This record gives sequence, structure tokens and C-alpha cells, in this order.
Amino acid sequence: MKLLEQLAPVSEVSHRSGPRDRVVLSSRVRLARNLPHIPFPGHAKRGDRVKAYEQLMPIIQGLAPLSGGLAEPMEKLSALDKQLLVERHLVSREHAAKGVGSGFVLNREESLCVMVNEEDHLRMQALRVGLQLGEAWTAIDAIDTALQQKVELAYSRSYGFLTACPTNLGTGIRVSAMLHLPGLVLAEQVGQIIQAVGKLGLAVRGLYGEGTEALGNLFQVSNQMTLGESEPEIVEKLNKVILQIIEHEDNARKSLLAKKPRWVFNHVGRAYGILCNAHTISSKETLNLLSLLWLGMDAGLIPADARPLVNELFLVTQPAHLQCLFSQQEKMASEERDVLRSDVLRDRLAGLARPDHRRVASPGLDDSGTPPTS
Amino acid sequence: MKLLEQLAPVSEVSHRSGPRDRVVLSSRVRLARNLPHIPFPGHAKRGDRVKAYEQLMPIIQGLAPLSGGLAEPMEKLSALDKQLLVERHLVSREHAAKGVGSGFVLNREESLCVMVNEEDHLRMQALRVGLQLGEAWTAIDAIDTALQQKVELAYSRSYGFLTACPTNLGTGIRVSAMLHLPGLVLAEQVGQIIQAVGKLGLAVRGLYGEGTEALGNLFQVSNQMTLGESEPEIVEKLNKVILQIIEHEDNARKSLLAKKPRWVFNHVGRAYGILCNAHTISSKETLNLLSLLWLGMDAGLIPADARPLVNELFLVTQPAHLQCLFSQQEKMASEERDVLRSDVLRDRLAGLARPDHRRVASPGLDDSGTPPTS
Repeated sequence: MKLLEQLAPVSEVSHRSGPRDRVVLSSRVRLARNLPHIPFPGHAKRGDRVKAYEQLMPIIQGLAPLSGGLAEPMEKLSALDKQLLVERHLVSREHAAKGVGSGFVLNREESLCVMVNEEDHLRMQALRVGLQLGEAWTAIDAIDTALQQKVELAYSRSYGFLTACPTNLGTGIRVSAMLHLPGLVLAEQVGQIIQAVGKLGLAVRGLYGEGTEALGNLFQVSNQMTLGESEPEIVEKLNKVILQIIEHEDNARKSLLAKKPRWVFNHVGRAYGILCNAHTISSKETLNLLSLLWLGMDAGLIPADARPLVNELFLVTQPAHLQCLFSQQEKMASEERDVLRSDVLRDRLAGLARPDHRRVASPGLDDSGTPPTS
Repeated sequence: MKLLEQLAPVSEVSHRSGPRDRVVLSSRVRLARNLPHIPFPGHAKRGDRVKAYEQLMPIIQGLAPLSGGLAEPMEKLSALDKQLLVERHLVSREHAAKGVGSGFVLNREESLCVMVNEEDHLRMQALRVGLQLGEAWTAIDAIDTALQQKVELAYSRSYGFLTACPTNLGTGIRVSAMLHLPGLVLAEQVGQIIQAVGKLGLAVRGLYGEGTEALGNLFQVSNQMTLGESEPEIVEKLNKVILQIIEHEDNARKSLLAKKPRWVFNHVGRAYGILCNAHTISSKETLNLLSLLWLGMDAGLIPADARPLVNELFLVTQPAHLQCLFSQQEKMASEERDVLRSDVLRDRLAGLARPDHRRVASPGLDDSGTPPTS
């Protein structure tokens, strides 16, 4: 059976919703854990990696919240399958590059995913739609507690949990949220926000984590410190900061719609026009334009019931999903995918009425609508 | 009465057609003529300019083909009215800058226009839609003959007609055609063509003549030599070259549609998508995108009966037409016009169905449609 068929159907994923999901697409808490006496995966020889893998996989699969889920060794997966998992944010890009001695375990609801032998022996993640950091923390903490009843972990009384990279030492926790910030980007305020967030000891990254671009106006915010604070403190701190960012984003959107409605209409309209009429379009351009459709929905230019459609397009236009869902070809050149992507977009968006600014009740609607000086 | 109301209605202009007008938008022949014993306009004092003007205007208006037409002194026209004339290609940008002592005479059909005191005392032009250089030459030659029966012109037995600029000396003729070359531009062959045409002693310029950009894939081709060849030879030479350019353009379009149909669809589709959905758009971008709608019609992606609509938009989205037709404001900032332009485009294009590649029978339709390496 193909991996795609074992994952939640795209239509189901597209209908998921959660608190504050107009800005916070998803919340995630992950814990890094290691076995004692076996080298970290990056330094382990194949035999040691396999040993850790064989010890850990049955234990993880045996944990109640993960039982009956999907468990696969990485070497069994095709490059395309691995990319599918990355596009769903279930495993990291680094993990997707792994082979023998690495694997993952995913629960049925796709709300828990454990990577075995990524950078650490265990990277355990809880995922939620919308702003649900506390819920994600509770879920992963339960997994961690259950795990520690079954296996001894590498732990130091002075440092806490030992990890391959010192940036994870101590709690081994990484709390993050994926934020959609088109308002701050269009208002050219996102740079300030990133700076301010950085000063609070938090990191801001692009769509696929460290070292990736902020495509689609999507930014991942996460803690950097894992030492010296308790997990609930770290979760609470990030939660507070995210609530502030949401407020800034909401204000930026309101302000743009009040002061420069035409500018918003222009961005949303052009995005719609291109997505509906292109005959070749890259993944990057698609992300950036779909982001503007989301903004258009939030602004009322596009009916809110189009959200699942746009969510779905956001997922299925990414390379591996596109290829697995709409092509029989094993391998496709990126130019071929760009053409296929445009076909899918034109087809799916054919029923979506063009953005209508008359749907928007905006106090600034009669202004000249001129964009900021540029 | 406003100047716009004295010119041919936009709807009429939009329906004009002529031979080979898929590539050759218009043909033009102009003659430069001067009075003897009065300094050329650029060197004349105001008194001399007015003297030439007062002598010439009644004579020109009295010529049979121009009688009953529109005759105006430039100083009577507002800046907006002058710009209207430039946008219709009736007077030059240089002439539009003139005031006291300059004027123009236009016949009812708008196929003849004489500028008085532009760079020369007289710049007499015959204009035709499509490729009709011979017809234009015949028309302006008749004017010239009639003129010489009424007034003595500055003429040297050695050099021919004397002109303010030596590049016009001799015949004083400038034969030109406005060409729409999207195929050669998209195929990246237009540079070669310009080079080749230059070697034949012809000039290639942008939409509004010397020193202007090639917006909307529009190029003006004209003779440079006015000395040593007879007028009919010059006309015939340009005609031959233009027939060759038409062939190159036709081949480029066919070849693109056969080899890279997706690429053509992509350009046309995106142009349509943006024009129908933008909420602010510059004049330049509009010209470039409307050019692609013309191409889309010629390629069969857009119904051919949309041509008058696109022609009309090409005219009415230019700054002065836009402002005179759709605004009550005396003065508009360019940002305000950009918004107004987008309103007009969205409104007028609302009834035009999106480009449909299934209408196009192309031998290369099943290819991967990848664009040329870039």
C-alpha cells in the first residue's frame, strides 16, 4: 500500500481547524531523548544505530497513544514518500534523508509522531491545529512519562536530558508554532517583529524549519533555550509571545484594510487571477499566492467557506503530494510539476468566484487606495 | 466643447481595421516642409513663429482633403487635451509641448494630420490602419502637391527640401509602421530583428517614437535616410522589410504555439488574470498585458470578436483618455489613475471568458510545455 493512502486523506486534513487558526496554523511540542551507553545517531556506527532502533521501535509502538498507528523504517520509503511526510510536517527534512536504522511512528490522528534516530535517538512530537501549545505539551509529556517507565534515558543530574546538540540539552524541549503573517509582511513590519522576538530568546524560521525561507508569509516561532527553565514555563512564555504576535498581525490587517484597502484588494485579486489562469507555476509562487487567498478570506473578499479548498491546494500543490495524487510518473522534472500544478490549480479554482471588494465593509474604502510609498 | 468630443469616438477607433493588422497596427508617412525666409521654429523668435503660423494655418485648412476638419492652436489646449492627441498618435510628444504659434489641422477621418511649427514649419502626416504605406504616401503626396500650388517652400536644387534637422533634408519624408511583435519578443528574437533592420538603414523605436520604450511589444520601424532616394523607393523599401518582419513574427508565433504552447498559454492566461483582478495597475503594465491579450486572440485562446474591446482598452487606459472619460477630476495623481485604470479594466473585462487553451488546435499541445531555458 502506498504511503499516501496510509496517511489521513487530504480532504480530511484540509478541514481541520483549531483556536486562532487564522494566524496560528499549527502548534508543536517536541522532546529530544536518548538512550544511555549508545552513541548519538550522528556519531553511531550502523550497528549501534540499528541496535537503538530495534530497541526503541517496539517500545514506542507499544505506548498506548501510539498503538495501532503507522510505523515505518525510513529505508522502506521512497524519496517521494519521505517528501510527503516532510510536506505534512510529520518528519523533519533531516529525518527524510535517513535510511537504515531510522524510522518513525505516527498515531492514527496524526497528532503524535516520533522520529527514531533523527539527530537524537528519539524526537517525539505532539502536533495540534491552531494555538494549542499547552495541549500539545500535555500530550507529549504523557508520552514521555510512559516512555520513562519502559526504558532508561540518558540523563544527567546536573544538565538534565542529554542530547546530541547542546542547544537541546536539559529539557530537550522545542515548542513551536507556525504563524501566517501576511498583514505584517504587507505592512513591512515583520522584520521588527522578528527582531523583537529574537531579543526574547525565541527563534523565527521559515516554512520547513531551520535555514528555510519564509514562503507563503509563514513563519515558525520557537524557543531557543532548553536549560534553566521548566517546560511549562517555556510553553507559557511562547504562548504569551504568540498571543502578542497575533495581536500585531490582527492590527496590521485591520490597519491595511482601513487605510489601504485597495492595496489589499490588489494583492488578493492578482493572486487569484494568476492562480486561476497560469499554465505553469512554481511551488514557491503558489505558496505565496495561496497565502494571499487566505488573507482574502480573512478580509472577506473571498467567501469563508472556500477555506478547506485553499487549505487543500496549499497541501496538494507541494511537489510530492502533487506527483503522488495527480501523476502516474515515477519521476517528474520540476518544470513538468510546474505545469501539472497549474492544471490542478485552474481546475480546482474554476468554481471559486473572483474576489469581490464590495463584500468588504471597510471604513477606508473610499480612499485613493494608493500603496505605501515605494 | 471638449477636445475628446471632437475626436472620433473611442468605440469607432476601436473598430478600425486594415490589411495585416494582426502585426501592423498602423502605417504613417509624414513630410517635413518649411517656408523660406522665416527661421525654423526652434530658432525663430515668437514673432516669426506666429507669422509662419498665421500664414500656414489658413492654407492648410483650405486644402480640400483637410477642409471641415479640426484646427486648433496649441495654446488653446489643456495639457490633458494635448496628451489625448499624443495617445492617438495624431501629434508628437514634442508638438504637445508647444504653445503660442503652434497648432494642428486634422481631417474628419483622422487619416491626415498637419502639425504647424513642430520642429519644422510643417509636419504633414497621413495615417492608415494596417499595412498601407503606399496608400498613405499617395494621400500625403496629394496634400504636398496641392500645398505647393499655394505657397513657396524652402527648397534647394542641390539638397531638396530644407529642414530644421539635417536627418530630414531632401525628401523630408519619414515612412513608419507600428508593429506588434509579441512572438519575436517572447521567442527572444526581437533583438536580432532590430539589428538586421538597423543594418538596412532603418530605425526601430518604441511606442511614442524616438527615445521611448517598446511597451506592449510595440515597435515603430521607419526610414532614416531622406536623401538620395526617391519617396516611392523609400516607401517600397520599408514595405518590403515590414513584409519580412511580418513573416518572422508569424513564424515566431507559430513556432511558439507548436513547441511551447504552455508558455504562450501561461503568458496570456496570467495577463488576463491580472487585468481582470488587479485593483491598481500602471499604464505600462497595462500595455504589456493587453498586448498579450491580442496575442491570445491571434492564437485562438480568446475569441476573436473581443478585438474591439481590447483595442478600446488599449486606448482608454492611457492616462489622458482614462482621465477624460472616467473622472470628473481636473488633476489626478498617477496613483489615482492606476486605481481608476484597474476599475475600468475589471469592469470592461468582466464579460470576457477566461482564455481557454482547449480552443487552440496545436500540434505541440501534449508536450511538457516547459519554457525555454532561463
